[in-house]
Amino acid sequence: MDYNPLSPLIDHLKKLPGVGHKSATRMAFYLLSMSSKEVDEFARVLVETKQNIRYCTQCFNIGYAEKCFICDNPERDPNIICVVAEPKDLLSIEKTHDFKGVYHVLGGLISPLDGIHPEMLRLDELMHRLRVTQPKEVILAINPTIEGDATILYLAKQFESSPFQLTKLAYGLPMGADIEYVDEMTLKKALEGRVSVL
Amino acid sequence: MDYNPLSPLIDHLKKLPGVGHKSATRMAFYLLSMSSKEVDEFARVLVETKQNIRYCTQCFNIGYAEKCFICDNPERDPNIICVVAEPKDLLSIEKTHDFKGVYHVLGGLISPLDGIHPEMLRLDELMHRLRVTQPKEVILAINPTIEGDATILYLAKQFESSPFQLTKLAYGLPMGADIEYVDEMTLKKALEGRVSVL
Repeated sequence: MDYNPLSPLIDHLKKLPGVGHKSATRMAFYLLSMSSKEVDEFARVLVETKQNIRYCTQCFNIGYAEKCFICDNPERDPNIICVVAEPKDLLSIEKTHDFKGVYHVLGGLISPLDGIHPEMLRLDELMHRLRVTQPKEVILAINPTIEGDATILYLAKQFESSPFQLTKLAYGLPMGADIEYVDEMTLKKALEGRVSVL
Repeated sequence: MDYNPLSPLIDHLKKLPGVGHKSATRMAFYLLSMSSKEVDEFARVLVETKQNIRYCTQCFNIGYAEKCFICDNPERDPNIICVVAEPKDLLSIEKTHDFKGVYHVLGGLISPLDGIHPEMLRLDELMHRLRVTQPKEVILAINPTIEGDATILYLAKQFESSPFQLTKLAYGLPMGADIEYVDEMTLKKALEGRVSVL
């Protein structure tokens, strides 16, 4: 029999990614030590975030309105569309302050083993958008993983005879890396993609 | 400017122990992917746990009633009181199914550096309880740390001329340990506390 009165809360916390029974127990005791006001506020933000967040009707980024803050910004260049898997990838790219185009969020990557097939991603929406907006360039900013490569390959096939330029992010050494400790695949890609210095 | 609509939720998640910005972001996206029903249920359990949990008026364990499930159990022996720092220590001891006495939860350990002084723990309540119930034994089940040792020392002084037996948990090798890798302090305690085999 389980005598811990925090068990229902612990069970919910355990559902979060990277949280096991011990961490969940620690979190539950911490939440118990917080003021009722703080706990109520946490619960309110949790429910409101889930209720109010919606997907941008154009790029499927998350936001509070019909159009996300990027699609809604007239200074962004609609001629360059950056295709990402998830909104968090979009946020990472935004942090570079280096990209002035717009995005398209696929909502995942092709992964037949996980049961994620092309028709489950927002590809039809991407195709339709490309036909309508006729951009100059489509950048695939997709993780260099098995699923990412499969998705890039699939998209490359779809866009074979398209009028826009199709690019993907550069693969190579991450900044600050030590060649001695970099994995072979990355070093291989860095060699393949070597660029002229002079 | 922060464009992430999940920021308010991330800020709350970051307050949890062991959760940094990256983990909180991952959790927020995970919560967003859950059904509204699940999220509402999580928020409800969070608020209700905080609202309904109270401290046992006798031992200060957590529970839903005036008396916790241990103090309320007539089969537990009130002659042996096990003193612990926190309810989670109590739960750990309960898991051994080896202790049939009752508990007293101090609510912390003496730690002048953290601003926790004896009068902030439930020591007066313990003294009062011991005078009233006159137990045969008081077991100090307190972590072998600087704070724990300070608390044990303090309690030992308070109980100098008390009629009950005052004991503390044994220190020594943890089960499955390798003497080669055990720290010196533990080995020292294991030597000091050596017991007759025959």
